[in-house]
Amino acid sequence: MNFNLSKSIEILERTPTVLETLLNGLSNEWIQNNEGEETWSPFDVLGHLIHGEKTDWIARTEIILSDKADKTFPPFDRFAQFEESKGKTISDLLNEFTDLRNTNLIALKSKNITSEDLTKTGIHPTFGAVTLENLLACWVAHDLGHIAQISRVMAKQYKEEVGPWREFLPILDR
Amino acid sequence: MNFNLSKSIEILERTPTVLETLLNGLSNEWIQNNEGEETWSPFDVLGHLIHGEKTDWIARTEIILSDKADKTFPPFDRFAQFEESKGKTISDLLNEFTDLRNTNLIALKSKNITSEDLTKTGIHPTFGAVTLENLLACWVAHDLGHIAQISRVMAKQYKEEVGPWREFLPILDR
Repeated sequence: MNFNLSKSIEILERTPTVLETLLNGLSNEWIQNNEGEETWSPFDVLGHLIHGEKTDWIARTEIILSDKADKTFPPFDRFAQFEESKGKTISDLLNEFTDLRNTNLIALKSKNITSEDLTKTGIHPTFGAVTLENLLACWVAHDLGHIAQISRVMAKQYKEEVGPWREFLPILDR
Repeated sequence: MNFNLSKSIEILERTPTVLETLLNGLSNEWIQNNEGEETWSPFDVLGHLIHGEKTDWIARTEIILSDKADKTFPPFDRFAQFEESKGKTISDLLNEFTDLRNTNLIALKSKNITSEDLTKTGIHPTFGAVTLENLLACWVAHDLGHIAQISRVMAKQYKEEVGPWREFLPILDR
């Protein structure tokens, strides 16, 4: 499948509803348990997605499309959510993510991105030049990757409870 | 997390809506593309989940709770969906899955399963004795595993398009 902006927006605009249907109203153990030491719970992942909406995708799109001489992205803080999500409920986070994503998609669409724009570049602090197409494809794959992660973390809560089925459910040992 | 019937139903009852929000109305490439030869597309996975609703979870629950002398489960056909889903749309499959799941959850709840029932066993054709608790935990983990799989398959459609971000997105090479 080749990159396509409107097919990318199909995914980006449904992620808030997917997370809402997957997580809202669940018992705390499904939301707060993780995969073991130094891994993230669904609650942590959602905070990470919120931080991305605030500081990453649109901010970096704007750097790439700007006339600035230095197009280096500020580094992204992968651990910001541990501070920022404190004291919030899963519903708070779902609402916050939904609002931020909606605002960001309005901003994205307002830029009327052309195929020439997609070839423009910015500088990633770790691995150098990336195109706008790379960035937007990454936004989509990042959403889907974290939906997969949340589902996997939840599945693993029943790793022992499935008994001998464990060997038929590779997700439980990934 | 220990097995808990009502917490299991929390997951089982939301899976149809999660799949609906994740898949309905998407472009065909997101629905029909897979991870390569002999792998499944989101469309194929949904057909597999439907076949499970028809022949697996409740049928096996009833065998375990029955008074039959032989409690061996009939084997499950992992490839039935390639015939059964032919000519159907993703909306057809989503509706079919939703109806079957609703019917099955009504059946499950009507059995008023006790903690003693959860220790009763049936015989899996491949690995022998399993408890009702194992079976019901497996139903939950199986749902979540396939939601993770669908998200992963979709993410992989942009494996090349993300450019150098690929090394930061482990989901793309799983």
